[in-house]
Amino acid sequence: MIIVLKREATEEIAQEILARIEEKGLKPLYMPGSERVVLGALGDERVLSELGLDGHPMVESLKPILSPYKLVSREMHPHDTVVRFGKANIGGGGFAVIAGPCAVETEERLRDSAKAVASAGAIAIRAGAYKPRSSPYSFQGHGPEGLATLRKIGDELGLPVVTEVMDTADVDAVAESADMLQVGARNMQNFSLLKALGKVRKPVLLKRGLAAKVEDLLLAAEYLLAAGNEQVILCERGIRTFETVTRNTLDLNAVAYMKQKTHLPVVVDPSHGTGVRDLVVPMSLAAAACGADGLLVEVHENPVEAWSDGAQSLYPHQFEALMAGLQPVLAAVGRELA
Amino acid sequence: MIIVLKREATEEIAQEILARIEEKGLKPLYMPGSERVVLGALGDERVLSELGLDGHPMVESLKPILSPYKLVSREMHPHDTVVRFGKANIGGGGFAVIAGPCAVETEERLRDSAKAVASAGAIAIRAGAYKPRSSPYSFQGHGPEGLATLRKIGDELGLPVVTEVMDTADVDAVAESADMLQVGARNMQNFSLLKALGKVRKPVLLKRGLAAKVEDLLLAAEYLLAAGNEQVILCERGIRTFETVTRNTLDLNAVAYMKQKTHLPVVVDPSHGTGVRDLVVPMSLAAAACGADGLLVEVHENPVEAWSDGAQSLYPHQFEALMAGLQPVLAAVGRELA
Amino acid sequence: MIIVLKREATEEIAQEILARIEEKGLKPLYMPGSERVVLGALGDERVLSELGLDGHPMVESLKPILSPYKLVSREMHPHDTVVRFGKANIGGGGFAVIAGPCAVETEERLRDSAKAVASAGAIAIRAGAYKPRSSPYSFQGHGPEGLATLRKIGDELGLPVVTEVMDTADVDAVAESADMLQVGARNMQNFSLLKALGKVRKPVLLKRGLAAKVEDLLLAAEYLLAAGNEQVILCERGIRTFETVTRNTLDLNAVAYMKQKTHLPVVVDPSHGTGVRDLVVPMSLAAAACGADGLLVEVHENPVEAWSDGAQSLYPHQFEALMAGLQPVLAAVGRELA
Amino acid sequence: MIIVLKREATEEIAQEILARIEEKGLKPLYMPGSERVVLGALGDERVLSELGLDGHPMVESLKPILSPYKLVSREMHPHDTVVRFGKANIGGGGFAVIAGPCAVETEERLRDSAKAVASAGAIAIRAGAYKPRSSPYSFQGHGPEGLATLRKIGDELGLPVVTEVMDTADVDAVAESADMLQVGARNMQNFSLLKALGKVRKPVLLKRGLAAKVEDLLLAAEYLLAAGNEQVILCERGIRTFETVTRNTLDLNAVAYMKQKTHLPVVVDPSHGTGVRDLVVPMSLAAAACGADGLLVEVHENPVEAWSDGAQSLYPHQFEALMAGLQPVLAAVGRELA
Repeated sequence: MIIVLKREATEEIAQEILARIEEKGLKPLYMPGSERVVLGALGDERVLSELGLDGHPMVESLKPILSPYKLVSREMHPHDTVVRFGKANIGGGGFAVIAGPCAVETEERLRDSAKAVASAGAIAIRAGAYKPRSSPYSFQGHGPEGLATLRKIGDELGLPVVTEVMDTADVDAVAESADMLQVGARNMQNFSLLKALGKVRKPVLLKRGLAAKVEDLLLAAEYLLAAGNEQVILCERGIRTFETVTRNTLDLNAVAYMKQKTHLPVVVDPSHGTGVRDLVVPMSLAAAACGADGLLVEVHENPVEAWSDGAQSLYPHQFEALMAGLQPVLAAVGRELA
Repeated sequence: MIIVLKREATEEIAQEILARIEEKGLKPLYMPGSERVVLGALGDERVLSELGLDGHPMVESLKPILSPYKLVSREMHPHDTVVRFGKANIGGGGFAVIAGPCAVETEERLRDSAKAVASAGAIAIRAGAYKPRSSPYSFQGHGPEGLATLRKIGDELGLPVVTEVMDTADVDAVAESADMLQVGARNMQNFSLLKALGKVRKPVLLKRGLAAKVEDLLLAAEYLLAAGNEQVILCERGIRTFETVTRNTLDLNAVAYMKQKTHLPVVVDPSHGTGVRDLVVPMSLAAAACGADGLLVEVHENPVEAWSDGAQSLYPHQFEALMAGLQPVLAAVGRELA
Repeated sequence: MIIVLKREATEEIAQEILARIEEKGLKPLYMPGSERVVLGALGDERVLSELGLDGHPMVESLKPILSPYKLVSREMHPHDTVVRFGKANIGGGGFAVIAGPCAVETEERLRDSAKAVASAGAIAIRAGAYKPRSSPYSFQGHGPEGLATLRKIGDELGLPVVTEVMDTADVDAVAESADMLQVGARNMQNFSLLKALGKVRKPVLLKRGLAAKVEDLLLAAEYLLAAGNEQVILCERGIRTFETVTRNTLDLNAVAYMKQKTHLPVVVDPSHGTGVRDLVVPMSLAAAACGADGLLVEVHENPVEAWSDGAQSLYPHQFEALMAGLQPVLAAVGRELA
Repeated sequence: MIIVLKREATEEIAQEILARIEEKGLKPLYMPGSERVVLGALGDERVLSELGLDGHPMVESLKPILSPYKLVSREMHPHDTVVRFGKANIGGGGFAVIAGPCAVETEERLRDSAKAVASAGAIAIRAGAYKPRSSPYSFQGHGPEGLATLRKIGDELGLPVVTEVMDTADVDAVAESADMLQVGARNMQNFSLLKALGKVRKPVLLKRGLAAKVEDLLLAAEYLLAAGNEQVILCERGIRTFETVTRNTLDLNAVAYMKQKTHLPVVVDPSHGTGVRDLVVPMSLAAAACGADGLLVEVHENPVEAWSDGAQSLYPHQFEALMAGLQPVLAAVGRELA
C-alpha cells in the first residue's frame, strides 16, 4: 500500500506511521518528495487494513497495490475452475446454456417452457420460486410449492435446475431441492446469505449487483470460497447507468476482464442485461464471442402471458434460433456448446 | 397506463388488448394517431401489471401514469408521519441528530464516543454489531455481544440506540435489544428482511441503496408499511456515480423531492454520503437547509484507531462544532434541534 | 404526447390546455381518471415542444410517444445507409476496420504504424492531428502539420484517412485534407461544429459522448442530416459509469439497439471502450458478433513510446491476430471483412 | 507516480524503467515486494506523462500522487480569487445571485424577467442568445440579435450580463457584448473554446459537464488560467446519473470539495441541477449552506410561455421568496448577499 501524506505532515508523523507499519510485520518505505512525503508498506494488504491509516488526519490518500481478493484470483489458481452441473460442465472451455421462465407460474406452463428449452439444447432449467420484486404488489413467487414444482419438472426431463434463494432461512430447503442456488443481483452483498451459502455443497450462481464494481463481485465470491464453497459461477447481468433505452447496461468488458483475473466460470444473462427481447440474441452472440462460459436466458412458452419479465423473455422459436446461431460463433472462438 | 403500439400493430390487435383491459375492470382508451396507435388503461396500476402487456410483441412501450407506491405517498396521507424515538420525535418539523461510531469495538471506546455525542446533543447512539463489509477479511462486527454492549451503553446514558440488522434470523434479537433497526444500503432490496421488519413494532431506518432510484426506495418502504410497520424513516446516504473524489454522491435533490412526495421522515447520512471527514460538516448544513428531518453521523472518540470508516468519522470536537453550526441554519429554515 | 395533470388541476385548466393543443393543429384527447386527468396530443412532437407545457404549474409530467429523431430513423428510411470510404463501404452488411495510432507523432512512426495496419487489412488509417486532452499540459497534437503528414502517408499507401476536427474554424482545412472527419466524444453535443459539418460533403464519424444517451447520439446525428450531410457513421466508444477497472463501459447493447432503430452504420471503438490493451481483441469480436458494421482500433508500432493512449494501443502483431480472429466470427454472423 | 509492475516483470525491466525515470530528471525509487515490484518516480507529474509508461506491457498500473492541476490549486494560491462583476464581487466570502430566463425570447419578455430579478436583488442578468439544444428542431436562440437585446436590457437596468458562447468563431462578438462568458456543460471539454477564452479579458463562467469528474472540471479551468485568464468561476449544475425523478443529480459534495481544493469561486445552478421548479428553492438554500459563492437561477416572467426550460424556471414571486429565504441561511454560515 502507498500512503500519501498531506503537505503539512511533519517528519515526526511520518516516522510514527513507519513505526506502526513495521510493528505489523510489514516492510516500511520512506519516499520524501518535493511536494509530499510518500510512504509505502509492502506485505499482506489484509493486515494493512488493521492499521486504520485511512482515518489519520495527516493521510491524504491510500493507494492499494495488490488486489483485495485472493482465493478467486487466477494468480493464486491459474487453471479454470470447472463446475459440474448435471451432465455438463461450466467453465474450462465449453459453453453452457441455462434457460427457462422468470418464475414458476403453473406446473403446465413450466413444463411447456422447460420442454422447449431442453429440446433446443439447454443443459438446465431456471425458474424462480422466490421472486425479488421492487413492488410489494407484484407477484412474489410460489415459494416452497414453486420449489417442488420446479424439482418435479427437472426430474421429469432429467435436467438439473437452478433457482434463487433470497433468505438464509430458506437456504437448506433450496439446497435440498435445487441443483444450483442463485444469488440475485439485489442480494450480491447480502453477506449473511453469502456466508450461509459458503457452507452449502452445491454450486452457487452469483449475479453482479446493479451498482457493483467488478472488484465488489469478486470479493462477494471470495466470501463463498473463504467459507468453503468453491463451486461458484459469476454472472454478468447488466449494471445500472444513465441509459434508459435498455433496462440495464450489459457490461461485457467485465466478462473479458474477469476471465483474465479469476479462475471461476463467468456466464452472462442477456435477458436482464438488456430488458428487451429483440436484443437478447445479438447480445448472447456477443457474450459467446468475448469469452463467456455460458448464458442464463429467460424463455417463456408464451411471454404475453408471463407474470413477470415478459418483455425480455424469448419465445421458444427464438430460443431455438439463438441456439442455432450460437454454434458457429462458438466454433469461431474455439468453443463448443456443452 | 399508456400503451404505445408498434407501427405494424393491426387494428385487430388493438381491439384485443382493449378487451383485455376492460376484462380487468379498467377503463380502456383508444387513441389512433398518424404514426402509432396509442391505448390507455385507467385505474389501479397494480392490476395493470397483471395484464402482462410488457411482454406483448406488438407493444412498443408502456408508460405508467400513477406512482407505484401508495401507502408511503403524501397524496394518501398528507400529514407528516412522526416517529417517536426515546424522548425525541423524528419528522414533523424538528431536526434529530443520531451519532456514534461505525462499529461497536470495545465497551470503553463505545462509552467514550457515546458520551461525547450525547453531551453535544445527539438524541440517540448509532453503532454496528453486525457489519456488512465488502471483503470477508475485514472486521465483521461482534454480533450478539456487540448488541449487548450497545444496549448497556444506551442504558447507562439514557439514550435510545439504533443498529443494523442484516439477516432475518437476527431480527428478533436485534428488535429486542435495540430501539430502532437499521436496514443498510446493501440490503435495501432484501425483500425477505423487509417483510420480516414489517412485522416488528419498532422503528426502522431504511437506507437508500447505492443504485436505488428514489422510486425504488419508496417501494422498499412500501413493503414495510404494507406488512404493518408504519414507523419508517428514510435515509439518503449517497449513490454510486462516476465521481471518485468522494466515496458516494450525496443526492440532496432526493431529500427535497421525497419531502414533497412522502409523509415519512427523511434523514441524511453525510458520513457515507461523502466518505471524507472534511466534507461532513458542510454537507450536514446543506441537509438541514434543504429540508431533511435529521442526520445520522459517524463520530469516533479517536478515528485514527477506528476499525472501520475512520476516514469519514468526525472527532468529538468536530461533532460539537457541527451541532453548534446546525442551530442557526435550522433557525433560518424554521426548525429546531430535537 | 401524453400530459399527466396534477391531482389538483381543475376541469377548467384541462380545457384550456386542450384548446392550446387544438390551436397548434394537433389532435387533443381527454382522459379523466379516478386519480388524475390525463390529456393527449397526437401529431408532430416537434410542434408540441412549442406548447411549453413542461413549464405549466398544473402539469405533473409529459410523456413523449414518438421518438424525437426523424431523418436518422429506420422507420423513415428502412434500408441501410452505405457510406463509401476509399474503395470500401461502411454499412450494408460488410465489416470495415479502420486503424492507426492515437496521434500523428513523427512521419516515420506514422508510416510504420500505417503500413502495419494496412498490410493486416485495415481499410483506412486513423490518427489525430488535433488532440482533445483533459490536461493543458498533455500533448495537444501537431495541428496543420499533423494533418499534412497524415495526408502524405494516406497517399503513399493509397488508403483514405480519418481524423478528428475540434473547432468550426478548422472544418474547411480538415475537410480538404482528410477523407472522413471525426467528431470526438467530448464534442458530440458541440452543436456549432455539428452544423458546420452538416454542410461538408465528406463522411462524418460521430462518436458517442461519455454521458450521452442513445437518443442524444441519434439527435446529434439528426443535426448532421438536417443540415444536409447524410454520410454519417455512428461510433460507440464506451460510456462513463461507476466501474473503474476499465476506462469506460463499452455499451454493446447500444449497438444492437441502434442497428434496429437507425439506418446509419454503427462502428465500435474497443480501444477507448475498454482502455485496456488486453481487452481490445475480445471486445472487437463481441462487436462483430452483435451486429456492428466495423471497428475503429488504436494500433501503434511501439505502444511503449506512444505519446498518448499507449495503454490501450495494440502492437502490430496483436492487430494482425485480431484481423485473423475476426474472420470466422464475421462468417458466423453472415458478414465479411470489407 | 507509483508504478506497479506485473508479477512476471523481470529485474532487468525494472532497472530499464528506473533508468528512463532518472533520464527525465526525476527521482527513481525501487520497492521490491513479495508479490510485485513497485517503482516510484518523484517530481513533476507533467514530465512523467512523457515517459509513456502506461503503454508498457509489463506495467500493471500507474498511480499518480500529485493532483494534475496546478494553477487552479489552492495549494499554489491559498487565498480566494475574487472576480469583479459589475458592482459586485464573486468569491471571497459574499454570495452572488445571477438570474434570468433560459433564453432571450422577445425584448419585452426579457425586460420583464430582468426587472423582476433585479428588483429582487440579483446582481446580474443571465439569458442565452446561442442555445445548445439536444434536438435540431428545438429553438436555437436568436444569435447576434439576442446578444444585442441582452446588452440593451443590461444597460437599461445598469446590470452586467452573462451569456453562453458555443463557438470559437463567436468569442469576439460575445466578449464585446457581454460582461461574462458562459461555457455550457456540453462544451466543458471543448478545448478549442477554452483556449480562445483563455485569451479574453472578461470573466468566464465554466459549467461542469454532465459526465465530468471534479478533476476534469478543474483541469478545464486550468486551460483557461494557463492561457492567461484568471477570472474563472466554476459552476456545479448537476451530473448525469441513473436517477430519473430529477433531470440531473446536483452534486453539492463537489461544491464543498472544490471550495477546499481550489481558490476559484464556485457557484451552483439549481435550475439545471434539479430540472424541477419545486426543488429549486430548497437546493438553493442547501448550496448556500455548504459554502457555494453564489447561484445561477432560471427565472421567467411567465414560465408557461417559456420557449425552453419552463419546467425548471421560477416565477418572479418564487424568486423573491428565494432571495428572502437565502438571507438568514447565509447569515447562519457567516456570509451575506452581494
